[in-house]
Amino acid sequence: METVVNNQSRRDFIKYSAAIGAGIVLWSPALATEKGMKMNNYVKTEGYAVFDTSGVFKPWKFERRPVGDNDVLIDIKFASICHSDIHQMKGHWGPQQYPQVPGHEIAGIVSAVGKNVTKFKVGDRAGVGCMVDGCTTCENEEQYQSDTLFTYGYPDKREPTGISQGGYSKQIVVRDHYVVHIPDSLELKEAAPLLCAGITTYSPIMRADFKKGDKVAVAGIGGLGHMAVKFAVSRGAEVYAFTTTADKAEDIKGFGAKEVIVVDDTKKLYTYAGQMDYMICTIPYQYDVAAYASVVKPYGFYTQVGMPVGFEITLNALGLSASRVNFNASLIGGMKETQEVVDYCAENKIYPKIEIIKAEEITEAWKKVENKEARYRYVIDSATI
Amino acid sequence: METVVNNQSRRDFIKYSAAIGAGIVLWSPALATEKGMKMNNYVKTEGYAVFDTSGVFKPWKFERRPVGDNDVLIDIKFASICHSDIHQMKGHWGPQQYPQVPGHEIAGIVSAVGKNVTKFKVGDRAGVGCMVDGCTTCENEEQYQSDTLFTYGYPDKREPTGISQGGYSKQIVVRDHYVVHIPDSLELKEAAPLLCAGITTYSPIMRADFKKGDKVAVAGIGGLGHMAVKFAVSRGAEVYAFTTTADKAEDIKGFGAKEVIVVDDTKKLYTYAGQMDYMICTIPYQYDVAAYASVVKPYGFYTQVGMPVGFEITLNALGLSASRVNFNASLIGGMKETQEVVDYCAENKIYPKIEIIKAEEITEAWKKVENKEARYRYVIDSATI
Repeated sequence: METVVNNQSRRDFIKYSAAIGAGIVLWSPALATEKGMKMNNYVKTEGYAVFDTSGVFKPWKFERRPVGDNDVLIDIKFASICHSDIHQMKGHWGPQQYPQVPGHEIAGIVSAVGKNVTKFKVGDRAGVGCMVDGCTTCENEEQYQSDTLFTYGYPDKREPTGISQGGYSKQIVVRDHYVVHIPDSLELKEAAPLLCAGITTYSPIMRADFKKGDKVAVAGIGGLGHMAVKFAVSRGAEVYAFTTTADKAEDIKGFGAKEVIVVDDTKKLYTYAGQMDYMICTIPYQYDVAAYASVVKPYGFYTQVGMPVGFEITLNALGLSASRVNFNASLIGGMKETQEVVDYCAENKIYPKIEIIKAEEITEAWKKVENKEARYRYVIDSATI
Repeated sequence: METVVNNQSRRDFIKYSAAIGAGIVLWSPALATEKGMKMNNYVKTEGYAVFDTSGVFKPWKFERRPVGDNDVLIDIKFASICHSDIHQMKGHWGPQQYPQVPGHEIAGIVSAVGKNVTKFKVGDRAGVGCMVDGCTTCENEEQYQSDTLFTYGYPDKREPTGISQGGYSKQIVVRDHYVVHIPDSLELKEAAPLLCAGITTYSPIMRADFKKGDKVAVAGIGGLGHMAVKFAVSRGAEVYAFTTTADKAEDIKGFGAKEVIVVDDTKKLYTYAGQMDYMICTIPYQYDVAAYASVVKPYGFYTQVGMPVGFEITLNALGLSASRVNFNASLIGGMKETQEVVDYCAENKIYPKIEIIKAEEITEAWKKVENKEARYRYVIDSATI
């Protein structure tokens, strides 16, 4: 990948930075001025950031990198809260740089485009997910490339803060390849959760080898899980939803599930031993994988999409052998698929169940997500930032 | 399953035991006498047992259950040492009853048969693996049935010691369905390791979807791994052997591996990223699953057969997603396959690399297995017990 930044390639810039400083030099407005760039190329914006691992948000003014020739500037209208935001910001996946603005489920309106951009024009409805730059020639698996720039917390020397900053803010600058179109029939507030919760469940469910009438299990019915139920139902599956929260049962039936199993004891899982044609699990914490895997038919497939603390999952190899299940994990989806899921939801009238909140309510909303009180996605109205 | 024991079904017997005692009543010669059974029906034998979790062996005289109408009595000639023996006896898989005689790689000569047995006659060459009783009508997956009786340490009220006792001994009583024939062209000492190390690797390798010339990775080259290399080679694969023991390299090439990779740093694995069509891993301890999985082609398969402490394997879900690999686990094989592997090895002249030891050397041999000094299977000469 060769990203052009003000006629200086990213690679050259990294080389240059290394040459003038000791090791990693963070890009800063001051440095930019020294190099003859104009301060006013930077995008002044504001957002809600965390300043440590506490999960407490405060308003924060910051600058983003200039809109490059292949970039799109988006006025964010809505950004939703993903459990991954919490894990990453609290350091569950490694130490973070603060202040940091999370958020990778973003919907808004294009307000500027670089001179090479043909895919978008000012005024277009646009969505951004977990990636903002990287390979532009990949066959739909950008998320697994080594040079992918994820939406927040990833080192990016072009950024005044030294890292990418996410969607709990008013504007964002994104490489055009990493922006999707949002059809007119889809409300922006309902499009936002599709950019992570949607694509993360859509991708493996569409790839899974099940037929109409097959039994599909979904474990963990939160932001991701409730979309998984809807996608599997839309493919004609008989959906069995496994949740630990009894009072979600009625909602889940409303999403189209045939049966809701409240797993207050893992023994309950064995009642369904070997019955499911496929299983997708969104649980973002350690849990008893082998017990859940037991519900899948021998030699069937089981996909983990929830990413736990440290990304670590401990499983019982003997239990897994007994179920003879193929366990795999899936990370979001490529850009082609991300456009697909948004279009699929528009065409099939599949919408996430959301609750709009103000920016000042984010801290509280995170606590509710952790306490399994979200029903099912909190969406931040960016006008309140 | 209804196993007949002296005209009394096992199920009835368990019921009866519960009725006369408090909860579980261990079968004892005294109890047997009370119930009118003859003491001399019990098979007096001797073996080498552990008496606690220390892994220290001492000679031990004990009795086995009478030879039932469907049973075979085998004079054991050779029994080999499996890493699982060590895990189970040291309590790594849960607390054990002692004294206990381990050993589930057994080869010998039939010395008596029950009146219903037609599959064997006295003088037949016979092998016994990890199971000694259970379902007799299963479609080749006896090992996954709930009523399977494993070869040692499993409660069995018919046994004078209350549990099954394994093959580090001079005789064993086994249900006929769980005994395999050993062809004349296979030496008994070389047949023994096939009953666990052989079947455990043969079963998934034969089931794996790879073609002649495909690249197959084998990780962990001990008793199981060296057989895995030979089986994969016999199927025409290009075999890549991953070991942590540099001085095994020459041996492993001798087994037919195309390349031996000494994994002294997991970073080495990334050199082979996405290259292998299939992988089988025999490592019986915690290890970095995602790093090993990275060598498999996206959407390929990876089978774990080594069973670690507590059966627990911790894997990095993000790493697993990046490799897009299907991770599964496999436990030995069914009885039909167990006969198959013995016949396959005889036909294809595939033999384990063994070292014969005396019974008094078992304690020391276990230490060598743990220290990765075994080359590659210790086989106990039962004449020395």
